Amino acid sequence: MVDQIVSFFKNRIYKGDWLCGDVLPPQRELAKIFNVNRSTIVSALSELSSLGIIEPKVGKGTMIANNSWSFLFTNSPPDWNHYIEHGFHKSNIPTIQAINKYEFIDPIIRLSTGEVSSELMPHDAISKVLFHLAKLQVPFNYLEPLGLYELRVELCKYFKKHNLDIKPSEILIVSGSLQALQLISVSLLGGNSTVFVEENSYIKSLKVFEFSGTRMKAIPMDKEGPIPWMIDEKTLKEGNSILYTIPTFHNPTGLTMGSSRRNELLKWCKKNQLPIIEDDAYRELYFDCPPQNPIKSIDDSGNVLYLGSVSKSLAPGLRIGWIVGPESIINRLGDIKMQTDYGASSVSQWMLTLLLRDHLYEEHLISLRSKLKARSQYMLHLLETYFYDMATWNIPSGGFYIWLKLNKPISTEKLFTTALKENILINPGYIYGFKKSPYIRLSYSYASTKEMETGIKSLSQIIRKMIV
Amino acid sequence: MVDQIVSFFKNRIYKGDWLCGDVLPPQRELAKIFNVNRSTIVSALSELSSLGIIEPKVGKGTMIANNSWSFLFTNSPPDWNHYIEHGFHKSNIPTIQAINKYEFIDPIIRLSTGEVSSELMPHDAISKVLFHLAKLQVPFNYLEPLGLYELRVELCKYFKKHNLDIKPSEILIVSGSLQALQLISVSLLGGNSTVFVEENSYIKSLKVFEFSGTRMKAIPMDKEGPIPWMIDEKTLKEGNSILYTIPTFHNPTGLTMGSSRRNELLKWCKKNQLPIIEDDAYRELYFDCPPQNPIKSIDDSGNVLYLGSVSKSLAPGLRIGWIVGPESIINRLGDIKMQTDYGASSVSQWMLTLLLRDHLYEEHLISLRSKLKARSQYMLHLLETYFYDMATWNIPSGGFYIWLKLNKPISTEKLFTTALKENILINPGYIYGFKKSPYIRLSYSYASTKEMETGIKSLSQIIRKMIV
Repeated sequence: MVDQIVSFFKNRIYKGDWLCGDVLPPQRELAKIFNVNRSTIVSALSELSSLGIIEPKVGKGTMIANNSWSFLFTNSPPDWNHYIEHGFHKSNIPTIQAINKYEFIDPIIRLSTGEVSSELMPHDAISKVLFHLAKLQVPFNYLEPLGLYELRVELCKYFKKHNLDIKPSEILIVSGSLQALQLISVSLLGGNSTVFVEENSYIKSLKVFEFSGTRMKAIPMDKEGPIPWMIDEKTLKEGNSILYTIPTFHNPTGLTMGSSRRNELLKWCKKNQLPIIEDDAYRELYFDCPPQNPIKSIDDSGNVLYLGSVSKSLAPGLRIGWIVGPESIINRLGDIKMQTDYGASSVSQWMLTLLLRDHLYEEHLISLRSKLKARSQYMLHLLETYFYDMATWNIPSGGFYIWLKLNKPISTEKLFTTALKENILINPGYIYGFKKSPYIRLSYSYASTKEMETGIKSLSQIIRKMIV
Repeated sequence: MVDQIVSFFKNRIYKGDWLCGDVLPPQRELAKIFNVNRSTIVSALSELSSLGIIEPKVGKGTMIANNSWSFLFTNSPPDWNHYIEHGFHKSNIPTIQAINKYEFIDPIIRLSTGEVSSELMPHDAISKVLFHLAKLQVPFNYLEPLGLYELRVELCKYFKKHNLDIKPSEILIVSGSLQALQLISVSLLGGNSTVFVEENSYIKSLKVFEFSGTRMKAIPMDKEGPIPWMIDEKTLKEGNSILYTIPTFHNPTGLTMGSSRRNELLKWCKKNQLPIIEDDAYRELYFDCPPQNPIKSIDDSGNVLYLGSVSKSLAPGLRIGWIVGPESIINRLGDIKMQTDYGASSVSQWMLTLLLRDHLYEEHLISLRSKLKARSQYMLHLLETYFYDMATWNIPSGGFYIWLKLNKPISTEKLFTTALKENILINPGYIYGFKKSPYIRLSYSYASTKEMETGIKSLSQIIRKMIV
């Protein structure tokens, strides 16, 4: 009861009902008000007094002495909201937070998820390397700043297949491509920097560059990809700038840049000393013909930072990617990585080393490509059935995505929430762009064929209702 | 030869030897100067002309038309140094960079390394869970923002042993404690924040807080640990502040805070609404008696963010740690983690889940403790032999470290480089402190007993020479 009385007092004072200097009724009256013995009131007043909340006023009894938060609520937590609001790094936008959350809630159908489903993963190959690793008994110590040397050697061999001649000292192992971008952002860019990106870009859905205070500017595009000479040269000169592109099976549009545009882009950027981040996460996911060589393969002046990853082509849970670039940059990024998390998981790094060394990764890719192609064809078939009169879309030749453009303008924000109520999760185009967008990113990599059918059908019905 | 002439021209122009508007000698003369055929000169001039570097001047021959960097060196890389210098995140100090580098160069003896050597790792237990995982064939997809649910459930059970009653929703899985600090720094602190730290602290060797523009302030210490009421209250009110402490087997001093100081510290911080980061990475590494309960166990108001990790007690290469705190904070940190690297390695998270579930971690700790105790005794024996008249040190009751204080002042910067020349790597005290330091952090967790003997002996000889 003492506690309740103390807490009643605190609340009245906190709310401002009782003010500093106000005199309390005599103990006998308080005992009546609370319907308790006088000794209970004495205990409560004694505690309030020890907290400095009340004190005796000569000749007048007891008065309220303090109404500050810290006196009243010493048991209250720190004002955490204030910390959250004033933290340096901004929150994800609500749509992204919702996507990150609902992806893990059954029975959601994930129509846009940018990862392979479990059935596309090479479980036997992974088991094989886990067995192998169990026998090897390598110690899982901290690794050197650039990452496991054995892995970097295997990657050099692997890069040769893509016309890239790279040394282990030019590779930094990272925990996925997103971390690569984070490291580049905080290590090489600053408050006065501009990142030029395709006018629809995966990167726009992230806060990774905004973090370091950097601006993002859209580059106008044509069918060949971003048009370098449309870049505003004035902006270019204002601070350290960089260009970010996904030239191969672009996220979210699915497009691949032709080889003449690759040449032009590099030439223009070289002339203007504008470094390029080439994000090549989807390269291996072609259906029939291998795509154009990486821009990095024609980079004779260290202009390109080349990013890769096995998150899309093997299993994202390994959290392994890489940055290829000039040694001075790789060392700088490695130093910052050491300050960030002391390196990527050694277990994951060893697993990928063995998958590459034993050609298990290559074997897996052959089967993955044909499965992805079949899935893309199935989704295209569903679109032709349910969306033939409502939208247009690209025919992908690799990667994960179909970039669906709705013929009639509807609120894709509303579509997102309405679909979610029907357990369908989609990535609306506006999270990737600089303006309102009639687009939806669809992915055929995650949902099962049954889910695709249910999902695409329901989605078409929802949209049909919205455009009436 | 054409290339060489072109490059000769470019360099003279770049250096300012030849200025814009200067007229070139006639082709015949140039041919003589370079001792080549006139056709070679014609080719070289044609290339320079196509680059826009020279152009014809009516009636006067050919003149230098352009001397800007981008015209002269279209093949040159971007000015990467400028990017490095203006990047947002500061480099490690040279001593730390050297430590990170030399740790991987044979035949260095690592006398200060803060990790367990391979012989202290539970290779059989790790093999067991790798086999188990190979059979389970769990898909390694992206995980939900807070990390693998199964792991968080196992951790809740584990925490009970330390008097902590935690829910899975109050835990964020991170890639080691360093990342925990990084996330707290960028998510909750800002340019006006102060981090209070013990006057010697592991954290001082990192840039993790400075990154978000936050200041670090030392808290005076006595034998019981940091003295909270010595904290400057004015600083406290200036912005979001936080207190960072390693109360158990402190890095680098080896000290453990007694239970009355733990109580006082929490009480003071609660009163002042100052959140505490309790870094408890060394808790399990006691020699005889378990240490005091965590401060978190007496935290009834969500005042403490509690950090743990298996990097010190199992294998750092897993890169797995955790943050325990109020749900709102954990969700905020999880959102930022998703923007940083999309989560820690799923493989590592599954491995730790199985190690905890099958009690393999507990079993390993029993053997690790006795091995560490024996190693600490051996190092103490070596110190008594070689340093008895030159230094004083603590007798550790757990953890990794001996904090050696040299009796006579010498330059520990010089000691660091001199020892390195003799292949001995030490962590000098100044990397952990706010002022010059007569201390060296020694660790008995990494070097073999033979290396310890050679290393400690050589180190004593080097110091003996320096104090003469």
